Order: sequence, then C-alpha cells, then structure tokens
Amino acid sequence: MADKLKTAILGASGYTGAEAVRILSGHPRVEIEALTANRHAGSDFGDIYPHLAHAGYPTLQKWDDVNWDGIDVVFACLPHGASEETISAVAPCVSKVIDLSADFRIKDAALYEKTYGRAHTAPKLLSDAVYGLTEYARDDLKGADLVACPGCYPTASLLALLPALGLIDTDTIVIDAKSGVSGAGRKESAALIYPETAEGAHAYGVANHRHAPEIDQILTRHTDKDVRVSFTPHLIPMNRGMIATVYAKLGEGVDFKGFRETYEAKYANEPFVHVEAAGVVPHTRHVRASNQCRIGIFEDRRPGHVIIISVIDNLTKGSSGQAVQNLNVMMGWEETLGLDLVPVFP
Amino acid sequence: MADKLKTAILGASGYTGAEAVRILSGHPRVEIEALTANRHAGSDFGDIYPHLAHAGYPTLQKWDDVNWDGIDVVFACLPHGASEETISAVAPCVSKVIDLSADFRIKDAALYEKTYGRAHTAPKLLSDAVYGLTEYARDDLKGADLVACPGCYPTASLLALLPALGLIDTDTIVIDAKSGVSGAGRKESAALIYPETAEGAHAYGVANHRHAPEIDQILTRHTDKDVRVSFTPHLIPMNRGMIATVYAKLGEGVDFKGFRETYEAKYANEPFVHVEAAGVVPHTRHVRASNQCRIGIFEDRRPGHVIIISVIDNLTKGSSGQAVQNLNVMMGWEETLGLDLVPVFP
Amino acid sequence: MADKLKTAILGASGYTGAEAVRILSGHPRVEIEALTANRHAGSDFGDIYPHLAHAGYPTLQKWDDVNWDGIDVVFACLPHGASEETISAVAPCVSKVIDLSADFRIKDAALYEKTYGRAHTAPKLLSDAVYGLTEYARDDLKGADLVACPGCYPTASLLALLPALGLIDTDTIVIDAKSGVSGAGRKESAALIYPETAEGAHAYGVANHRHAPEIDQILTRHTDKDVRVSFTPHLIPMNRGMIATVYAKLGEGVDFKGFRETYEAKYANEPFVHVEAAGVVPHTRHVRASNQCRIGIFEDRRPGHVIIISVIDNLTKGSSGQAVQNLNVMMGWEETLGLDLVPVFP
Amino acid sequence: MADKLKTAILGASGYTGAEAVRILSGHPRVEIEALTANRHAGSDFGDIYPHLAHAGYPTLQKWDDVNWDGIDVVFACLPHGASEETISAVAPCVSKVIDLSADFRIKDAALYEKTYGRAHTAPKLLSDAVYGLTEYARDDLKGADLVACPGCYPTASLLALLPALGLIDTDTIVIDAKSGVSGAGRKESAALIYPETAEGAHAYGVANHRHAPEIDQILTRHTDKDVRVSFTPHLIPMNRGMIATVYAKLGEGVDFKGFRETYEAKYANEPFVHVEAAGVVPHTRHVRASNQCRIGIFEDRRPGHVIIISVIDNLTKGSSGQAVQNLNVMMGWEETLGLDLVPVFP
Repeated sequence: MADKLKTAILGASGYTGAEAVRILSGHPRVEIEALTANRHAGSDFGDIYPHLAHAGYPTLQKWDDVNWDGIDVVFACLPHGASEETISAVAPCVSKVIDLSADFRIKDAALYEKTYGRAHTAPKLLSDAVYGLTEYARDDLKGADLVACPGCYPTASLLALLPALGLIDTDTIVIDAKSGVSGAGRKESAALIYPETAEGAHAYGVANHRHAPEIDQILTRHTDKDVRVSFTPHLIPMNRGMIATVYAKLGEGVDFKGFRETYEAKYANEPFVHVEAAGVVPHTRHVRASNQCRIGIFEDRRPGHVIIISVIDNLTKGSSGQAVQNLNVMMGWEETLGLDLVPVFP
Repeated sequence: MADKLKTAILGASGYTGAEAVRILSGHPRVEIEALTANRHAGSDFGDIYPHLAHAGYPTLQKWDDVNWDGIDVVFACLPHGASEETISAVAPCVSKVIDLSADFRIKDAALYEKTYGRAHTAPKLLSDAVYGLTEYARDDLKGADLVACPGCYPTASLLALLPALGLIDTDTIVIDAKSGVSGAGRKESAALIYPETAEGAHAYGVANHRHAPEIDQILTRHTDKDVRVSFTPHLIPMNRGMIATVYAKLGEGVDFKGFRETYEAKYANEPFVHVEAAGVVPHTRHVRASNQCRIGIFEDRRPGHVIIISVIDNLTKGSSGQAVQNLNVMMGWEETLGLDLVPVFP
Repeated sequence: MADKLKTAILGASGYTGAEAVRILSGHPRVEIEALTANRHAGSDFGDIYPHLAHAGYPTLQKWDDVNWDGIDVVFACLPHGASEETISAVAPCVSKVIDLSADFRIKDAALYEKTYGRAHTAPKLLSDAVYGLTEYARDDLKGADLVACPGCYPTASLLALLPALGLIDTDTIVIDAKSGVSGAGRKESAALIYPETAEGAHAYGVANHRHAPEIDQILTRHTDKDVRVSFTPHLIPMNRGMIATVYAKLGEGVDFKGFRETYEAKYANEPFVHVEAAGVVPHTRHVRASNQCRIGIFEDRRPGHVIIISVIDNLTKGSSGQAVQNLNVMMGWEETLGLDLVPVFP
Repeated sequence: MADKLKTAILGASGYTGAEAVRILSGHPRVEIEALTANRHAGSDFGDIYPHLAHAGYPTLQKWDDVNWDGIDVVFACLPHGASEETISAVAPCVSKVIDLSADFRIKDAALYEKTYGRAHTAPKLLSDAVYGLTEYARDDLKGADLVACPGCYPTASLLALLPALGLIDTDTIVIDAKSGVSGAGRKESAALIYPETAEGAHAYGVANHRHAPEIDQILTRHTDKDVRVSFTPHLIPMNRGMIATVYAKLGEGVDFKGFRETYEAKYANEPFVHVEAAGVVPHTRHVRASNQCRIGIFEDRRPGHVIIISVIDNLTKGSSGQAVQNLNVMMGWEETLGLDLVPVFP
C-alpha cells in the first residue's frame, strides 16, 4: 500500500465523480484518500451513492478542508467555473491535477472568453494545461501537471475525425451526436425528470453548443486550416452512451479503401479504440460502462462522401475513464491499468 | 350510419393496422367493417390487441374471406411484398385503396427493381398510384383510387426538405434520422427485444436503407436535377417518435431570413405541420400519438448552412394518421376529420 | 357554444392539469375558460406544454386574477395544501369544484390531522366533500358541489377491493402497487431525473404512504369493521400506468367461483371497469392514456386465497379522467362524455 | 497460467452465458477454454456478443465437439430440459458442473414431475445435486460435483425469507416480485420486443410460476412444516434487476426489533448480502451488474406484520455471479474471487 498514489476526487457527488470512484476502486496503484462535495460535506458517501456503500470510502468533505499534504493527484469533477477556481487554489498543493470540466480545454483565451462569456481567471494554468485526448496527447501528457480532459462529445467526435484530416474536405463536416441523460449530470432539474426525457428525443444547443468550438480548436490544431464543424447534439433516453455520426466529403483523389485503411492503421494497436469490420455498425451497448470507443466507417451513398460512426460511454471514455487513462500516461504506467472494464450488456 | 364509408383494414395485427383502428374508431364518417390478419384469422381482435378489446370490432379473418361487396375502402397495412400481391387482387373489388406499405411508392419500375431486388408484378397499379404525402399531393389525391402512403422516414424528411428546394444546394443534403422501435413492427425478432433495444442506440441500414431512394425520387420530382441524399437512420429506445435532423448548404445568394420565411409561408395554413418559432427545438414528445409534424429551422454555425429538424409520430403522421388524412382528401371531406388527436404527454 | 359549461383549471402547469386540458379539449359540453399557474402566470400555455400549443388555450394567470363570474366549474390540480387554501377562496364563487388533490379526501378530521400533520383549515368543506370514486359514488355526486377525487393508488386499489368486501378476511389485505413516474408530478427533483428512475425499480413510502389511510377509510366505510391494509408503492420506469396487485384470504365458506362471479356482476355494466376473462392478466399498456380500469382475478396457489390485479393510467382514471367522469355525473350528463379515449399502444 | 482451472461455458449465446463470460474474464484462477452454442457453432463469439469482441475468446462450438480432456469445470447456461440432457452426458467427463438452469433444483422427483410435466431422466444426478444458494449451502458445496444454482426469483426471495423462519407465520407469506426483461433470455419472441415491454408493466405466471415450488421446497427444508407461499412475478421495463417485496405476519410473541436483529446478525459477515439501516429502501440500481443483494426490513402498518424487500441483479447474484460464488466455495477459494464487481450506476 505504501507506494500507492493518494488521490482526492473533487465533486464526488456528481456522476463523473462517482464514476471516477468506481474506476479507481479497482486501480492497483491508486488509493482514494479524500472525496469532496461542498453541499454534502459531512455525509457518508454511501448515503449519496448507495451503490458504493459498504466499501469504506472517506466521508465527504469540503475541498478546502482537505489535508493536501497527503494528496498526490486530484481528479476535479466539478461543474464549469467551479473547477477553474478550485484548481487555481489546489494545483500548487499537489503534484498532478486532472480536470474533467470544460474550464481548461480551450487554450485560446479569446476563444475561451467568446465561448464562456467571461475572461479566464487563471490564464497561466490555461496555457499550461494539456488537452487530454489520450490517443493524441501521449507525449504531452508525460510531463504534464494539469490535464484538461476532453468533453464527451469532443472525445467521440475527434476519435472519429482526426484520422480523416488530410483525407476529407474539412468544410463539409457534419457531426450529428446523440447522448444519454447522465451527461447532463445529477441536477435538480424539471427538464431532466423521467417523463421529460424518456420515450422521446430532441436536439438541443443547436448551432451553439459549447463543445463545438472545442472540436474546432483540436481539428484546427491538427491541420493547416481553420475548421468549423456543424455539430448538433441530441438527448435520447438512455443512462449511458453516446454516438457521433459524422459526415464528410472525401478530398480530391481520396478513395474509400484508402480512407478505411488509414483508420485501421491508426488504431491498430490502440487498447481502447477499435475500428469495426466493414459493414459492422457499432452500438452504444457494446461499450457500456467501459473505456472503449468503437468506430464504424462507411462509404456514403452520395458519391465521394463517407460516414464515420463512433460510440463511447459518455461517463467512461467520455469522462472519468479517459481521465484515469491520462493519469496512467502521466505516471508512466501501463496505460490500461485499472481500465480493464468489461462492457456490461445487457 | 347508412352513409358511413365501410372500410377493411388488411394486416390489422401489425402496429400500423392497430393504429389505423385506433384512429378510425373516432372517425365520424368511416365504419370498420372487416379486419384481416392471415396468421390470426378467427381470433378475436381484442386477444391480439387487448387495449382495443371491448369495442366490438370484427373478428379477424383472412383477406380472401372478406366479403368485398360491403367494402368501400381498404387500408392495406401489410408487409412489403404481401401488399403488392393482395392489392392486385383486392383493388378491382373496392372503390379506394390506401396502401401503407412500400410496394407502390417507387414509381420508376427500374428503380423499384434495383431497390427491392425484383420486378414489380403490378406495373399498371404502380404507375397509377399517387404518392400520398398529403401536403404535396392534394390535387392528385382527389381523383385517386390507389394511394401509396410515404414511409415514416420520407414523411419526416420530405416535410423538412421540400420547401427548401430552390434555396439549397441539393448535393449537400444530410439526413440524420432517429426512430422509435415501433417502426420495426410487431415481429418475432431477437434483435428487437427489450435488452437489445433499450438503454442504447445505434445506426442501421447505413448508406443502404430503402427509404433513401424514396426520398431521392420525390426530391428529384420537385426540382430540376437528380438529387441523392445522405441518409442514416438510427434506432433509439422509445415506442413512438421520429426525428429527422437535416443539414444543407444554402444556395448562392440565399439568406437565412428568407429561408425561414419560405417555410413559415409554406406551412402557415397547414393543420398538421407547424414551424416552430425561432430558437425553439421540437421534441418527439410534442407530437406523440398525434398526426402533427413540427419543424424547427436553424442557422448552422457553419456560415451559409442550415439545420432543419422535423419530428413526427412514426405510427401516426408517419403512417396510419397520414393514411386517414389521405382518405379525407380523396373523399373531398374536411382534411382533419377524425384526426383531432391531441398529443399524449407525458 | 352558448350552453357550454365554462371551466377553470387551477394548476394547469402540472401533469394532472395538462391531462385535464387534454381530456376537456375533446369534451362536447365544456369550454376551457381559464388556466392558472401562479409561477408561470403570463406565460403562453404552449410554452409550458408544447404538445398543447397551437390550440388556442388561454394564457396562464394567477388564480386570484381569474374572473370568476364567467366560471361554472373548477378543476383544482394543485399540490397538497395549496388546494385546501385555494378552494376555500374559490368555492363560493363557482357552482362546482372538482379537487384532484389529497386535501378533501380524508373525511375524519382527526385522521386528517394525523395523516397530514396539521388540522384542516376548512372543516365544513371537508365534511361536505364527496369522495369521488365514481363507480361507488354516483348518488352522492349528483347533488355535490365539491368532489374530492381519489388518489391514483386508492383508485386502483379500491376498484380491485370493494367488490370483495364481505367475501374476504379484511385483516389479510396486502396491496403491492407499482406506479409510473408521472405520478410524482413535474418537479425540480434530482431524485426523479432519468438516471435515477430509469432502468431500475424501488419501493418508497414503505408502511407510511399517505394513500394507505385513504384506502382504509373507504374500505371501512363499506364494511362493518375497521380495515387496515398493508400497502407498498413502488416506482417503476414508465411514464403512465399503475398496477395494484392485491392479495387476500377468502372468508369462511367463500369459494373462488362465487368470488369471481361477484366481480363480473358488479362491473358488468360499467363503461370503464372491465373484469378480464379467466387467466387473462391485465397490462398497464392496455389502458394507457384512457379512462379504463382492467381487473384480473386469480385463485392463489395458497388454498383459500385470491389475487386481484387492477391496472389504470394514473393520470387518467387515476386522476383527471376520473375527475371528468365525476363532472359528468354531477351534471347529470352521459357519464362517458369526453372520455371515449382509446388506449394508446404501443 | 498453468494452475488455472479450465472452464467450458455451455450455452454461451444466452444472457447468462454472456454474463458468466463477463465475470470469469476477470477471475484470477479460471480460464475460459471453450464456449458452446449449438445454433451458432462456428461463429466468432464477438459476432454474437460484440461487447465481448476483441478479447480473444474461443470460437463457439457444439457442446459435443468440446475436447473434455482439457476441461475441469462446466458452467451450464442452457435452457430448461437441454441442461438435463447435456449434463448427463458431460458430467462424467469433468470434475465439477455448475448448472444455472432449473433442471436440478427440485430434489423431490415427484414434485419435479408435477412442476415440469415429465419425469426427470437423471434421478441419480438430481439427487446428488446441491442447491447452491451459497449463503446457506457452504458445507454441502465443499464436496459437491454438481451444483444447481437457484433461480433468480428464489435467490431474491429466499435471501429475504430464510432468516425469518421461526419468527413468522409461514402460512402468511406473500412474495410480490418484479424482474427486468433480461430474465426472459435472448429469445425471438414478439412478446419481448421493446414496444411490448417498455413503458408498462404486468404480472405473469400468476399463481403458477415454476419458481414457486422451488421456493416452497427450500423453505420447507429449513423449517418443520410444509410451506406454500403466494408468489407473483411482474415484468417491468429494465434490463437487469429484481425486487422481491415480501409480506408476512410475525409469530406469536415475536417483536419487530428482535426480527430486525436476527437479520443483522445473520448477514453481518456476508460479503454479498447487506441489511439496510432502518428506514432505508434498497433500489435495484444499487446492485446493478454486481453480485450483491440488499435487504430492507420494515414494520408493516398492519400490527404484527413485516415487509422485507430484497434486490439483486437477476443476471449476477440471481444467476452467473452466484454460480461463480459457488465455484469459489466448491474449490475452497476465497469466496469473493472474481466477484469484486462494483455496481454500475447510473
């Protein structure tokens, strides 16, 4: 036990916090030392999440009551805005911070301000933070002290799109995404109660969702021109799961066979990203509660166009699972440590 | 009672058959005279659909046992292929046939053969059939004897797209559609059981769904060039409901304001198609169990592009409701007769 | 129109309010004149319930802004407590009040105080109110000015149990009930959001739910001894629907055949209560969105015991549908007026 | 690896088979050597269960093609009837057989014949088989060669009831149970498709479900009189999960405090059975995908009666998880080996 990394999970009363606890409880080199939740400080964690009762987790406390001397790494599972403030205070006290919020994802301070309506209060941290889409960030993660984990939509979308850069016309990208309801968090919200979210579906944030600039930013960084995608998220009645159905036009002279082979080569050795065989459509059920991403690639019926479908579990690969994957890379550990989560089906 | 139209519903053991019964049971000028279901012939209809028991509906019989002398109009709610054969036999015996299957939708015999893998056996009927997307077919419906009701996906897609013709670049159309599970019918299928369809989502028929050529055909008919859309259906966990999220690039010189106004003008007086106010996103829940279609129109974040979202109930406006709407027009009745179905929410 | 009854629906922003609007919109002798919702006063009703937009309903207002001169009958769809206060003020202004809350159901002031933790503030109204389980209250309803509609659980339970009085040992009654989530109302509650209510089930209010004394009260009123039932409600993932599975021991000398015949005779001519044929199990789906109750009667495998299963739609027969049924009886109209709601399945 | 036990999972194409694979994939002392599925013999396991693809599991084969020399233990996840026949053939070839079907559960050959409508064909095996409700069978399991794992309903019911024997009047036991749909298996059944099972609930097998005699048998074995319970299962819309809500009258002179303490003492040291604190109601969500059982104990509002609520995951503790737990005991291993499955919520 002596050599286990001590971790604090901030915002442990939210769904991504609980998912971090679930995953880390099986991680051989991490020990959960503190759990924070300001509103529920003093509560037994098992009263907030009965499915995690009887496991001896620490009592919930306020984050400023944590004894930081004993903490090596922080998982910040806080709401937008709260994360920025808390991490500014906590980062100096600990060795590594892994942020699951949106607060450190957009590196361009001007774009940040435009997207979130106010200036970032910790521009130095913002500039230092590594955008932790693990498969594309390993080198940067190795020395990082602060990692901004991608949003769930950007994770699904970017894993589907990044291999395509150079092969598609980036002006033609359409991302039609569908998410389970857990992505909205554990909120007191009439709009999220069962009768408003079950047995139906709807788009939301049409043309103005905050994950779109995040996607643009990363695509732009990986290519030689400004990318601006069409992105429409939909809420559908399931707890966990996300699909990004991505449409694009192939570039001049690119054939579909080569397009597919590029994906197969890119992800051949990835432990968590699988390219489906020709004709196979990935389902969110196939990755439920796991850190996996599955990608199906199809030739569109419109000549010269492709359809790329990627599925993840929004709480795992789309959030806390990828966060742990990032920790593993940051620490130089086996990347899959603690992440051998077999998908749960049915 | 004497002046009520006598109807036979063929294939009354399927979901569209049951929905036709539900709707017609409240239609003031139609009487259900016969219900057929070959496999269940002899059964009480209430044993097959207990929610419709105690209403005194006719016992199920085989279609060739029906006494056609007493029947004025037929609703054919049969599976693909079966409909073609049955209607060929029945059409001469009755005054009007309203087909809800795919069998008479594709007018071009060659395209039909390519799509369905065999030649149509009743080319004369095929050529006479009117494609019954009511809002765009009223003149043709008036004298029609055989109406082919559009598929649910084409209904949602075409109501969203037809006003745009002339205003968009038809080479850029992407239709990302999501359907409830009732659209797959009441089948003995392991792929449709609850654990395989609940709590998850997936695309299917990617790049090769049979509704795509149907959509192409109608768009092409309404414009001056061949249209070929991208169309991807998804199955999501709900009983009823369908969304088509449609993406397209505006034509040269078309501005978004004019685009929206075109829709508002086109549908201003439609009883069943509503254009949402700016910024309002339609939900499938808002049209559940009704004959309504709601359409939201959005300026995309990609300059010069639009997003059109249309929602319907796949079994009602997407099937049996539109069929009744067509009957009303064929008969010269008030188009809304029997269709004052208030959406059921929650 | 001149002879239509003018109605105000108080609390129209809740689910039972919206269901009352849905039902009354098709009632031939009632006109919706006012809709109230204090928090949403000034809002368009269609903004609160988009599925009921485009129908020309009145704008929401505060109840004390209603012009009572123009109102004949009030449907009070208010939360517990609020109803008592509002009805006390409104009752003198209108001819008939139909209350859907719990506030006037428990006639014994002492029991009321014990159940709800405070004295009733309008004991005269409480004592005048008729308990509107329609099938058992027609005579009283005829002259009534104030009707307290039964709760959804009592409706399902009492329709299942009342015919059994005299035939069972009332000390042995177990009611295991299961409800859809709409019964909890349209609340800002983290406990009701999709991830907390979908894909799982749980009991609640075990041994202390407020509907239990209500059930006791009515059973006791119909028999010669104090009845105290065991009652356990469960929340299950569906929007609408309720099952009461009722267990009891037959009285001395009562045989099952006679027991079943008593039910069949009792409900033979009821328009909304159906006794299933032997061996047939009722499903909530069979009554969804309708005013019907279906009751299955079974001989238990424990000798001398019976199982009675009743299903209703909690929002319709369990609430707003029964309220309209009561209005019809109060007014001396055909009891089924406006209630020919065909169940919606699937 | 050399000292890992080699296992064959028979019927790996069913849900309990897939769940056994999921669990055993993480078991440190077991290796999956063969997977059988007669209908799918020759298929890649990942084609049948894509969520378990990419893990290198053996190709599916017919059970009589398995090389039994290399197999130590068999998990039989076969349908009723098939299991009896297959195990009769396979048992002599292997060291241990763990049967998840109903075929070896009812020890009394006469009762077996009455329940299943035909004589058992392997009475010797039937008589040797140990009924593997682990918490109550450890001594017998140690030397056992054939274990009959309890059904999911009996598991939930018996864990709730066995501590009560001696404290309740066994003539008054009512078990009202609710199950998720995965319990019905992966079947081609129209009755199980999403529209027939979602958004509603119903009882089934009323007064004649085959799990009732199984429950009777075990209760009778643990007490001094014949027990005959009332048992009614219900199907509710969720994939995994089961509740048994159990009602009973306390025996003469038994008080509730002592009743609760008996449960707390009985299960104090159990790794998988937890008694909730007073007032806490267990949810199926709290045990989802885990091997845990949670039991809530309540004083009924009927004087002298109790309510016991137990929840399990029907596929895990109710089936494949308990099967692995039994293997651990049979082998003399740590009972929790491979079963540290953290519940998955949401």
